[in-house]
Amino acid sequence: MDRLPPHVRRARRPEHKELRLASIVDAARSLALEKGVREVTLTDIAARAGINKSAVLRYVETREEIYLRLTAECWTRWAAALAGALGGRTDGTPDELAATLARTVVEQPLLCDLLAHAPLHLERHVSADAVLTYKLAALGALDDMARTGSAFQPVLDEAATRDLVSTVSLLAGSLWQISTPPEALARLYAEEPRLAHAVVDFLPRLTQTARTMAAGLAARAGLG
Amino acid sequence: MDRLPPHVRRARRPEHKELRLASIVDAARSLALEKGVREVTLTDIAARAGINKSAVLRYVETREEIYLRLTAECWTRWAAALAGALGGRTDGTPDELAATLARTVVEQPLLCDLLAHAPLHLERHVSADAVLTYKLAALGALDDMARTGSAFQPVLDEAATRDLVSTVSLLAGSLWQISTPPEALARLYAEEPRLAHAVVDFLPRLTQTARTMAAGLAARAGLG
Repeated sequence: MDRLPPHVRRARRPEHKELRLASIVDAARSLALEKGVREVTLTDIAARAGINKSAVLRYVETREEIYLRLTAECWTRWAAALAGALGGRTDGTPDELAATLARTVVEQPLLCDLLAHAPLHLERHVSADAVLTYKLAALGALDDMARTGSAFQPVLDEAATRDLVSTVSLLAGSLWQISTPPEALARLYAEEPRLAHAVVDFLPRLTQTARTMAAGLAARAGLG
Repeated sequence: MDRLPPHVRRARRPEHKELRLASIVDAARSLALEKGVREVTLTDIAARAGINKSAVLRYVETREEIYLRLTAECWTRWAAALAGALGGRTDGTPDELAATLARTVVEQPLLCDLLAHAPLHLERHVSADAVLTYKLAALGALDDMARTGSAFQPVLDEAATRDLVSTVSLLAGSLWQISTPPEALARLYAEEPRLAHAVVDFLPRLTQTARTMAAGLAARAGLG
């Protein structure tokens, strides 16, 4: 057994199993950042991790489970990035909060890509346990952001801040897919003046929409 | 040739070609409404239309082209439904406009399903010509809705109304996928109290978000 190359040896001890799983997730992350989630196959991930494909399936259920784990991880990172950017201040405004939410999510391109794939593909090709683990992580991050975001400014309470974060995440997911078209489509946009309106500049568009949403929530909070 | 059953005969005259194409599109529409866009294959569509699969490919490029045609058609229907619902009034409010936008898009479940699929899948598997035809139809419907919607109420101008319609369409696309989970996931939501927050009730959630967005746009219009 010891003569076999490392990638065909089986990780038997729990810490080995963790390491193997981490290398699979790392491979999936770097490949998705290079060519987009849609293009990455389980075979690509196995090759990048230096493990053979059947061995990968000892650690994860499906390709989609790997990406669902990454989606959960990205939500947690986004919550941490928001907390860092808000810096514990309590004198902010809903407008600043909205702009910071937009900026911090745009700074996580992998999350932006995964946000549309999660309900459409990922959640549909994993076990109920894997969905539950993912959902609890994502909801936990959302709750964190609702707390940090409402502490940052005095206008929007936790429920309103939660609506804001949730709407920004939905818009980030759909705007990202529209604003990163495949090459053929990008060429068409550039060449066809009648499609000028179809071109979406991701950060400015998301920021503007988030700020409008925050203004609406603030107007409603004022009435309440 | 006359002895062959109708579905293997080739439509040679332009009006026959149109009829054949219409029957393919109708088949794709009814199948998508029954089981969701994701589940429908080109083989299903051919079978429902009573045409063999290779014959279908004389009329359309790909399965995705059929659904992109349907997306364009649905945008046009949405614009017409909005105009009908607003009834030529000019004394409306941004809030009423937002609620009407949400209601009229929710009444088009096929459009709601297609909105997420269009950038993620459909636009990527068709020719540039097919994308251009689709985009011009969708942008035309959006422009129509911006005009009807801004004529309906005196607060939001055409540009602001366009932002509202566009945001409602993005949110309808992502919320629809989340609010219509597959059976296994729906069961998980029902059984797991910790996931209560993950359940999305489509029309109320979209209506509330659209109204908040309209309030924000109105607040900004008041400042401008």
